[in-house]
Amino acid sequence: MKEVTVDIKATKSSKYPIYIGENLLEKANDLIKENCKATKLLVITNEKIDGLWGDKLKLENAEKFIIPDGEKFKNFETLISILNKASELRLDRKCAFVAFGGGVIGDMTGFAASIYRRGVDFIQIPTTLLAQVDSSVGGKTAVNNDFGKNLIGTFYQPKLVIADTKTLTTLDDRQIKTGFAEVVKYAFIEKTCGENFGFFDFLSKNIEEIKKLNLKFIDETVEICCKLKASVVHKDEKENGLRAILNLGHTYGHALEKCSNYSVFTHGEAVAVGLQVCFDLSLALNLIDENYYDKASDLINKFEFNLPEHEYYEPEKLIETMKFDKKVEAGKVRFVLPTNIGEVKIFDDINKKILKEILK
Amino acid sequence: MKEVTVDIKATKSSKYPIYIGENLLEKANDLIKENCKATKLLVITNEKIDGLWGDKLKLENAEKFIIPDGEKFKNFETLISILNKASELRLDRKCAFVAFGGGVIGDMTGFAASIYRRGVDFIQIPTTLLAQVDSSVGGKTAVNNDFGKNLIGTFYQPKLVIADTKTLTTLDDRQIKTGFAEVVKYAFIEKTCGENFGFFDFLSKNIEEIKKLNLKFIDETVEICCKLKASVVHKDEKENGLRAILNLGHTYGHALEKCSNYSVFTHGEAVAVGLQVCFDLSLALNLIDENYYDKASDLINKFEFNLPEHEYYEPEKLIETMKFDKKVEAGKVRFVLPTNIGEVKIFDDINKKILKEILK
Repeated sequence: MKEVTVDIKATKSSKYPIYIGENLLEKANDLIKENCKATKLLVITNEKIDGLWGDKLKLENAEKFIIPDGEKFKNFETLISILNKASELRLDRKCAFVAFGGGVIGDMTGFAASIYRRGVDFIQIPTTLLAQVDSSVGGKTAVNNDFGKNLIGTFYQPKLVIADTKTLTTLDDRQIKTGFAEVVKYAFIEKTCGENFGFFDFLSKNIEEIKKLNLKFIDETVEICCKLKASVVHKDEKENGLRAILNLGHTYGHALEKCSNYSVFTHGEAVAVGLQVCFDLSLALNLIDENYYDKASDLINKFEFNLPEHEYYEPEKLIETMKFDKKVEAGKVRFVLPTNIGEVKIFDDINKKILKEILK
Repeated sequence: MKEVTVDIKATKSSKYPIYIGENLLEKANDLIKENCKATKLLVITNEKIDGLWGDKLKLENAEKFIIPDGEKFKNFETLISILNKASELRLDRKCAFVAFGGGVIGDMTGFAASIYRRGVDFIQIPTTLLAQVDSSVGGKTAVNNDFGKNLIGTFYQPKLVIADTKTLTTLDDRQIKTGFAEVVKYAFIEKTCGENFGFFDFLSKNIEEIKKLNLKFIDETVEICCKLKASVVHKDEKENGLRAILNLGHTYGHALEKCSNYSVFTHGEAVAVGLQVCFDLSLALNLIDENYYDKASDLINKFEFNLPEHEYYEPEKLIETMKFDKKVEAGKVRFVLPTNIGEVKIFDDINKKILKEILK
């Protein structure tokens, strides 16, 4: 079992562990007891996860609540159903909400925990690669509304994260790939995170084993990604600066997801396209040389993201949508762009003409 | 103009001023600029307040959003309407939400600010006595749900509070009285707050001027209440201990409000009954002597709360409701009870037989 610590600099007493390894579900009850004083647990999950892995997760003093599966249910309606369930069970302030599932479940459960009785304990048990390497770490919680993705939410750190990599073995190819998009993202931002694990080379070298889901390599991949994210969140929990680099590929990715009504692309697929757009943009703006451009594009391609058709999305519409990205101020289009291997910079107002050219 | 500072011990950089005085609405624009960097303001108010005082509040770069008036609209539906308005206006992270009204507006606007784009700046301009002496200070935000009052919310501190006591002059008698209930509460807890302004004597001596709304005395009253609350919140923002004393009279008060569907009693009226119940209970439990009991009851009576009939509420039903009070753990009934002038203690499990006797 690997352990990564997240330590938020700005807040007292908000240090927590991420446990990574195979078959951790069976140890979850003990790990929770070690790290959380909650007297009652409310496990939020969906039917699929529960059917596949629910038997392995045996928690004491726990109630279960099943929510519908999918990004389109990441809304106020589902959030309120969680809060009503907790109220109905008369859970008091000493309870904890446990997110058992992917990013959607994690984001909503965390949000619910942060506002139920003005905040109860929160535990993450991510079961997708995307959630394990990214969304379960760092305390962002959210729901979508009609105007955009994750527009409503809080910053709320869990008490612990338990990433059982064995759960990844029941994901289908598309679900694994959506996680790989965030994984490869970390290779492009590692040094700006303030670390140097040689992740770009690690991925390039071991890509076949990783794609085969050899858990030895997956465990290490998850660990490195969590360390990189922890390093960023330590310095900037609330995205006042540095944390924005985690959004490499996301400005375009979010717009693509939104314009296709969250029903065509998985998050990772949209990010994968977004990453390539960033490299195209960086090259067009002379921020990187062709050598790095080729190496990076090659690494992205090797993951074989099998993207749905998306040429029919109008550049104008996408740009208009990007202007309303959560990260953006006053109608500008902000991009995180690669400048060197593992290095990125934030550009606050991208020239829309060049952007439009690229998008064509 | 008086100024009280709230300084949250546990969090870095969350110090903020409360300004108290007559005609501060006219100075609000400058006070906001001094204390908040927001580039755009969204003022949340209701028709009544806006009609009476909207003209005096001239803010630059501000949009206004009118919500319906009353506790029964303090729910997710209204909250979502505020968030949709902000989204529709495409307000970015540098905006601030301004609560211009009473406690309902303050609680909901604060909650909305705390979750819009994971938190934007929040400004309180309370226009009722209840809000000025109590709810606008300390950062509790909330909505009600079907299971209870304020069950969903956050702790979220404003950037500043502007209490224009002139706005109190258009409140009707019942609205003023609802504020007096919280005012007199502070007289009973002052020393346990860690202060000693002689507030019990101040109130006893000046009650006629205060009831007449002589603003000289009102300003001082608001100032003392804010100082007492600030003193408590400084030590315990998130109600892990001391802060619970602010709920003197509220265990019973909340149950009464809930059982009458929030439509019979104002919050203060319910608290006024709750305060008397606490003194009855304290006397029955030999926590106070008859001398203090008489003095306290006399002070409560002098405020002439003109309570609606409430004898028809069943003690059993009220006790059952109290068990589900947000402050309570595992079916116990917690009461804050007076033990001496200005002093209270928290009792975690009140004997339900004695309680039932009192309630009869």
